Amino acid sequence: MNAPEATNRQALSRTQPLKPQRWPRTERRQARIRSVLARRQPDLTVVLENIHDPHNVSAILRSCDGVGVLRAHTVYSIEEPPPGAFARQTSAGAAKWVEVERHPSLADCYKRLRAEGFAILVTSIGPDARPLYDWNLRVPVALVLGNEMRGVSTEARDMADGAIQVPMVGMVESLNVSVACAVCLYEAYRQRTTARDYECPKLDLDRLQALEEDWLRR
Amino acid sequence: MNAPEATNRQALSRTQPLKPQRWPRTERRQARIRSVLARRQPDLTVVLENIHDPHNVSAILRSCDGVGVLRAHTVYSIEEPPPGAFARQTSAGAAKWVEVERHPSLADCYKRLRAEGFAILVTSIGPDARPLYDWNLRVPVALVLGNEMRGVSTEARDMADGAIQVPMVGMVESLNVSVACAVCLYEAYRQRTTARDYECPKLDLDRLQALEEDWLRR
Repeated sequence: MNAPEATNRQALSRTQPLKPQRWPRTERRQARIRSVLARRQPDLTVVLENIHDPHNVSAILRSCDGVGVLRAHTVYSIEEPPPGAFARQTSAGAAKWVEVERHPSLADCYKRLRAEGFAILVTSIGPDARPLYDWNLRVPVALVLGNEMRGVSTEARDMADGAIQVPMVGMVESLNVSVACAVCLYEAYRQRTTARDYECPKLDLDRLQALEEDWLRR
Repeated sequence: MNAPEATNRQALSRTQPLKPQRWPRTERRQARIRSVLARRQPDLTVVLENIHDPHNVSAILRSCDGVGVLRAHTVYSIEEPPPGAFARQTSAGAAKWVEVERHPSLADCYKRLRAEGFAILVTSIGPDARPLYDWNLRVPVALVLGNEMRGVSTEARDMADGAIQVPMVGMVESLNVSVACAVCLYEAYRQRTTARDYECPKLDLDRLQALEEDWLRR
């Protein structure tokens, strides 16, 4: 990987000014970035539908980074995204490492995800939802998380491929949305790690190299 | 269960004034409470060590209720508990259903948990921590969660039976504390539900009846 990478770097430095580097380009950092990218799961993602609390957005992005989500999706059809929540310098740094793509509508978002081969599952507490542990989460899957008060919209549920429910045996009927997200993502992690899915990179070499170069500049 | 319960109720009504009932004492509600109590796990708990953000406390208590934690523990040795976070009317209702016991010190808390047969595991990102999925969480276990900035204290770690780590394959080094808590609690739930631990009540009949009567008044 060394030769083409060096060429890329030289090419970039000729055509565009380098941004001020916040971190030194050490071998250790490069190795860490390479190792993280090798375990990124481009076939696991989340859709945040009108999630308005920046604490929740921050916690969700940290969990995404933790299990290797490459890119998250948002739809803000009713309200604006919480200011700063997706900025690269917040979220204890997670927004720096998880790409976030905003879609103009849920239909656009679903269309894009389906074109990329994702099954779309809403997280729900409705009676039609199947328990988390019944699902195979090793397939390409997008988990839709709804607004803190309203949950996922009827539209989101109707257009989805299914509904997933985190089991609860208590008196309260729902979990915090960032908690529900993490419990689902970590079940995907558990299934995938058991099947050794993290041991071989899922991104192709060109993409890995481009991302490595990009991340080294962050 | 009906006869002794009726007697209890009469006895209570003679000796103390009834609190205003927020909910009617319907058969449906009684059945729900009974069903929830039958699945409470008195051998699964958490210790909140100086957790200061009320959002986190609220999310943690909701997760506790969700997996059947009967009683949670707190130690506030450095700061005060966040105002209102443990009040019965907040936390989307979860503080109403999860008993919270505050201890004057970590040593007192650990002593009490050990007397009750709990293994004590701190959640940690340190190199000595073993991954979550390697642990048997069907045994009586208390999970210690540390402050948002500092993590668990050295004292908490040194006195514990072990350290548990939620695996992370990303760039960020830690999860939100309420997320880490939920991922651990739901792994305990998954292990216990696979082993059918939720199918037989773990509380004895006297305790179930007393709690049912108490909960009906909440």
